[in-house]
Amino acid sequence: MESLPLVDHHCHGVLDRDLDRAAFEELLTEADTAGPITLFDTQVGFAVRRWCPPVLDLDAHAEPDAYLARRAELGAAEVNRRFLDAAGLEALCVDTGYSPQAILDPPDLGRLAGAAAHEIVRLEAVAEQVAGDGVAAAEFADEVRARVQVHGAVGAKSIAAYRAGLELSGERPSEAEVTAAAGRLMSDPTPRVCDEVLHRFLVWCAVDAGLPVQFHVGLGDVDADLRRGDPLLLIDLLRAMDPVPAMLLHNYPFHRNAGYLAQVLPNVHVDVGLATHNLGHRAPALIAELLELAPFGKVLYSSDAFGLAELYFLGALLFRSGLAGFLAGGVDDGAWTAGDARRVAGLIASGNARRVYGI
Amino acid sequence: MESLPLVDHHCHGVLDRDLDRAAFEELLTEADTAGPITLFDTQVGFAVRRWCPPVLDLDAHAEPDAYLARRAELGAAEVNRRFLDAAGLEALCVDTGYSPQAILDPPDLGRLAGAAAHEIVRLEAVAEQVAGDGVAAAEFADEVRARVQVHGAVGAKSIAAYRAGLELSGERPSEAEVTAAAGRLMSDPTPRVCDEVLHRFLVWCAVDAGLPVQFHVGLGDVDADLRRGDPLLLIDLLRAMDPVPAMLLHNYPFHRNAGYLAQVLPNVHVDVGLATHNLGHRAPALIAELLELAPFGKVLYSSDAFGLAELYFLGALLFRSGLAGFLAGGVDDGAWTAGDARRVAGLIASGNARRVYGI
Amino acid sequence: MESLPLVDHHCHGVLDRDLDRAAFEELLTEADTAGPITLFDTQVGFAVRRWCPPVLDLDAHAEPDAYLARRAELGAAEVNRRFLDAAGLEALCVDTGYSPQAILDPPDLGRLAGAAAHEIVRLEAVAEQVAGDGVAAAEFADEVRARVQVHGAVGAKSIAAYRAGLELSGERPSEAEVTAAAGRLMSDPTPRVCDEVLHRFLVWCAVDAGLPVQFHVGLGDVDADLRRGDPLLLIDLLRAMDPVPAMLLHNYPFHRNAGYLAQVLPNVHVDVGLATHNLGHRAPALIAELLELAPFGKVLYSSDAFGLAELYFLGALLFRSGLAGFLAGGVDDGAWTAGDARRVAGLIASGNARRVYGI
Repeated sequence: MESLPLVDHHCHGVLDRDLDRAAFEELLTEADTAGPITLFDTQVGFAVRRWCPPVLDLDAHAEPDAYLARRAELGAAEVNRRFLDAAGLEALCVDTGYSPQAILDPPDLGRLAGAAAHEIVRLEAVAEQVAGDGVAAAEFADEVRARVQVHGAVGAKSIAAYRAGLELSGERPSEAEVTAAAGRLMSDPTPRVCDEVLHRFLVWCAVDAGLPVQFHVGLGDVDADLRRGDPLLLIDLLRAMDPVPAMLLHNYPFHRNAGYLAQVLPNVHVDVGLATHNLGHRAPALIAELLELAPFGKVLYSSDAFGLAELYFLGALLFRSGLAGFLAGGVDDGAWTAGDARRVAGLIASGNARRVYGI
Repeated sequence: MESLPLVDHHCHGVLDRDLDRAAFEELLTEADTAGPITLFDTQVGFAVRRWCPPVLDLDAHAEPDAYLARRAELGAAEVNRRFLDAAGLEALCVDTGYSPQAILDPPDLGRLAGAAAHEIVRLEAVAEQVAGDGVAAAEFADEVRARVQVHGAVGAKSIAAYRAGLELSGERPSEAEVTAAAGRLMSDPTPRVCDEVLHRFLVWCAVDAGLPVQFHVGLGDVDADLRRGDPLLLIDLLRAMDPVPAMLLHNYPFHRNAGYLAQVLPNVHVDVGLATHNLGHRAPALIAELLELAPFGKVLYSSDAFGLAELYFLGALLFRSGLAGFLAGGVDDGAWTAGDARRVAGLIASGNARRVYGI
Repeated sequence: MESLPLVDHHCHGVLDRDLDRAAFEELLTEADTAGPITLFDTQVGFAVRRWCPPVLDLDAHAEPDAYLARRAELGAAEVNRRFLDAAGLEALCVDTGYSPQAILDPPDLGRLAGAAAHEIVRLEAVAEQVAGDGVAAAEFADEVRARVQVHGAVGAKSIAAYRAGLELSGERPSEAEVTAAAGRLMSDPTPRVCDEVLHRFLVWCAVDAGLPVQFHVGLGDVDADLRRGDPLLLIDLLRAMDPVPAMLLHNYPFHRNAGYLAQVLPNVHVDVGLATHNLGHRAPALIAELLELAPFGKVLYSSDAFGLAELYFLGALLFRSGLAGFLAGGVDDGAWTAGDARRVAGLIASGNARRVYGI
């Protein structure tokens, strides 16, 4: 079970340039800066030092500076190739909506990983492009719908949690409401969607296109106001969009709330991406808590890796070993058979993702 | 300790008819339907397959279809008899307020279980019956009070969490407020209480009758909007109703919040019914988290079983073994003595319930 | 690691008089009264019975009455001396703002503990003293600022969570707003700060004085309305006060939320004081959850002990052994090296506190 191929159903691009220590630490956690401490003294920092040096031919537990020196010596291209390969993925779904720095695009990422790469369309980015293209407010809705339809992505992603928050109503907004909101959006020289009506409209565009919708939920960088990131806030919209699949991403520290939604709402699926590598040595506890209420046919794997090649690898390694430990523990205790454990592992590692995204 | 008799202080009736696989899965969790997956692939589903087949003369881990075939072969009456007997209960408190299908009434349930059966009166059901009986709005309050008083129940139950939510004020509503709310209720041809004033009024009716009040808290079916089901929302009313006991039911995923309330408010008691069997193999973790802040003299057992005979048995089995493991682990670590562990087990299994309900 | 000296960065005074059983139980948890049960039947009660009797020359697990008899025999002065000494502290920061009964002052406490004692100034107490001194409303702000500046404390403490709640805006209130709020405060014959503007103003007084600000967060006695005690509510102010350190105290049951804030905001630090001894045998689980997201350079120790000498000792003992177990477990699993474990233990036990408070 430790070598099970995974579908990483939500990740971003990897940086294709070398990184100094400050840049590396900035990408390691959700903090913008470390402040007066080092972010290597975190669960994820220790997980990097334990698991990553051997991939770069060093001993486990290398000191940060030694590790970064070896990383620079090999160069970003080789480092990326090694970690993506070591991740053991069979497919990736890449959210291309956030790319403040040069990153590899999905096909490049897929080649590095030796895996099929699919795209996830970032809904707010589409709306902001349309707004930036200067269409009339009355044409905004149709133009956005058209671009979401023809995009060729296997799913869509909403970042409402980073903007207006997850308390989105279940009702489809009227054309008049969307036009009014589009007018407000386009009055800004650098349009930025942060409007309950628009986030909701965008989700309905994806629903109408039959695309599974990924929602950022729970932890993220400091711009994510966690007060508005509890998945319980989203219940009305989740219910209304059934049977189109809703994918609750990350979820920590609300992963038990997410598990509840996955049980009671037939279209809701969950993961603990981002949190898995952030929790490092504690990832098994997180996985066990997610698997309390969430039906095993509704749980997926994602890394939510961004920038650092190490994170694609660590997410996969920690999830795979955490899940294997959880299932093997159940076999040892007699909770389920070894055959059931293997079958459930296959569902969570890739089967559920294949079913939902049709990949 | 593994054979300790339990008082199940909150359960419902059991179905007295045979069930096909779809009907069985619908009753297994809080989901209305499984959607594209099977709900046997859940913690509770695996707990059923592990523990229940031997009660029906099959090997543990039987496949779902084989299990259901044997269940049909034995017939509902025999299945109910076996599981209720195997639950090892010494008393039950039965909430009779929710019965969308034919179920056994409390005396019948008690006979099956070989246990004393007591009734819990569902407050909103009383109000809806009075409203349906066509009394004048001005007489509504007195009529409800009278029916709660004479009902003969050992406790009352509020489902405010399913309706207007748990944010109930601590103040006793005025007669004028109740009359106005009753008028609104009765203007509906099928009266349904969903009004902060009425939920609160009903709690005070029970308090005035000296009845412990059970509150639905936390998880439940999809109609329970979990945003409004956090027990912290109820603090003002809990404080105001002291010294009449308040019983916070289920509580997951807010069980730590409930434990806090049980510590700081002398009249508050807690359980993890419903969650215990839903978490299956993870029930020990839940029990340990509940027992962090909650004084051991304030913790009770309930199954919250409804419909499926398996759930009365599983709830009891998982709670008993989870509690026994928790207490034995403490003995092994030197946290408490074996004598204290036995005494605490007796309190939680039945002593606390006997004290609160006077049974 | 089990004998590591600790800096207790948040505690109160100890009572210098003998206590009967009722008074002892009242001080043991956050409940005002036990109600119909004994509060010895709690995690903290069993922790007292396990660890404290040997300090008073009794066997572990002494019965409560025998323990209290021995305590009375030795007398409060000797009992205080033994427990403070056994706590193994190298420094204490004492919040002197809450003292409903005679307690020892910081220098006395430091002498008992054989440790350096520093003071934390309670911000709301300063404001209430100024209001009680009858200054003009227009002079209130300057007078409070002056007293906070000259106080000589190493940090300040806000109890907004007990009053108006933690949802404090990030903006510095205007002089006019403060003057108006001061007018309202002083119109009360017994001034009591419970006003969003004033709590916020007080935090800015401390920030301007360069003092780390401790915030009561999460559990506390029944006056702490836990609905308003989630640290996520405080995010705007935490961000605005950077780079002055913010110290989130207690945090349970929101300690994972606090850990998130400690990761993403460079000035935020966290502890699990009060909860550590309240959870007794479960303290290791709490410590492990705190150390999921919180960088190890942002985690501190505090007891939040008040009144009972046992609590200074228990908090220290449980934190030290819980942290040691967490770190040793990681060494055993290969998560980090023994050298890193020792270094991290030193940071959390005292190094982080020394850096933040400059002590």
